[in-house]
Amino acid sequence: MSDVPPEIETLIERMAKLPGLGPRSARRAVLHLIKKRSQQLVPLAEAMAEVGRTARECLRCGNVGTGDLCAICQSEKRATGEICVVEDVADLWAMERSGVFKGRYHVLGGTLSALDAIGPDELRIPRLVERIADENVTEVILALGATIDGQTTAHYIADQLDGVKVTSLAQGVPVGGELDYLDDGTITAALNARKAL
Amino acid sequence: MSDVPPEIETLIERMAKLPGLGPRSARRAVLHLIKKRSQQLVPLAEAMAEVGRTARECLRCGNVGTGDLCAICQSEKRATGEICVVEDVADLWAMERSGVFKGRYHVLGGTLSALDAIGPDELRIPRLVERIADENVTEVILALGATIDGQTTAHYIADQLDGVKVTSLAQGVPVGGELDYLDDGTITAALNARKAL
Repeated sequence: MSDVPPEIETLIERMAKLPGLGPRSARRAVLHLIKKRSQQLVPLAEAMAEVGRTARECLRCGNVGTGDLCAICQSEKRATGEICVVEDVADLWAMERSGVFKGRYHVLGGTLSALDAIGPDELRIPRLVERIADENVTEVILALGATIDGQTTAHYIADQLDGVKVTSLAQGVPVGGELDYLDDGTITAALNARKAL
Repeated sequence: MSDVPPEIETLIERMAKLPGLGPRSARRAVLHLIKKRSQQLVPLAEAMAEVGRTARECLRCGNVGTGDLCAICQSEKRATGEICVVEDVADLWAMERSGVFKGRYHVLGGTLSALDAIGPDELRIPRLVERIADENVTEVILALGATIDGQTTAHYIADQLDGVKVTSLAQGVPVGGELDYLDDGTITAALNARKAL
């Protein structure tokens, strides 16, 4: 549309790239923001710029945070010797919402995938092996999705880790489902019923 | 979630207020943005701040623009003597996408609504009456939704405007539908088949 100011056109194009938004919903969101400039648009732009300045990947586990180490890795209370391995930060947040796990995490950054040519070095698997040696780890809990790629990744990791107990979430994870979509009760049941690989 | 950095928590809360997004999709969008910080998050924050600085309401018609007058009101090519009255800017954009209307617009900012206590003075109706007197207007085309409130508003406006031809979009607008959801062909058909009130 030639008569839309280029600044607004640019904003719509960039909003439309967000997951869950398309061109039409991006237009609606942008018009909504322009109408609520001081209450919503300016605060949202500031919050976004602030996250752009401060968000960092935790050097130890891959979680998002604002320092070298994320809040969970910094907390002495979480040093239980248990590490929960998840695919991504959304899954870590899903685990935290269930509130049942008290240890630390390791965020892989995806799953092994032959189709997408993702091997162990594309994920944070070597770093996990280092952590087992460096930290006083008693158990590694694999909380990966019950998908083919997730289970392939779980078995690969179990093979890599020697001298440490490796368990995985079991009952309650629906076959073909992804962790971020589970309700808290299902996650709790799956964690409590974890079994040795 | 206590372990999410407050900057990110704030961004998620503000994103969740956008139309079409809820808490879960806002979380997904924010994690997506953090992963693509330089390609997406920073450019989006900048585009948003830029729109916050520059976007203004056109003093004449209520469209969004970056100066006192919007691009359409500034264009000499659009001074055809026809004014198309729409509910909001999304509807103006829908009309522009169809490409069939060559005149200028008047954005009401809503419809009359007894339920929501919106009267003529909450809308840009007095300004429309002024424009009929000031500008060389030959026809006012009411392009309002085929809803009860839209049609009430259309009849109210037609009563207010003396000495000028008032037409309204007719065939093609589905009863109960809203303008922004129509395809371009339907809008074109409705404009071509407009009838005198």
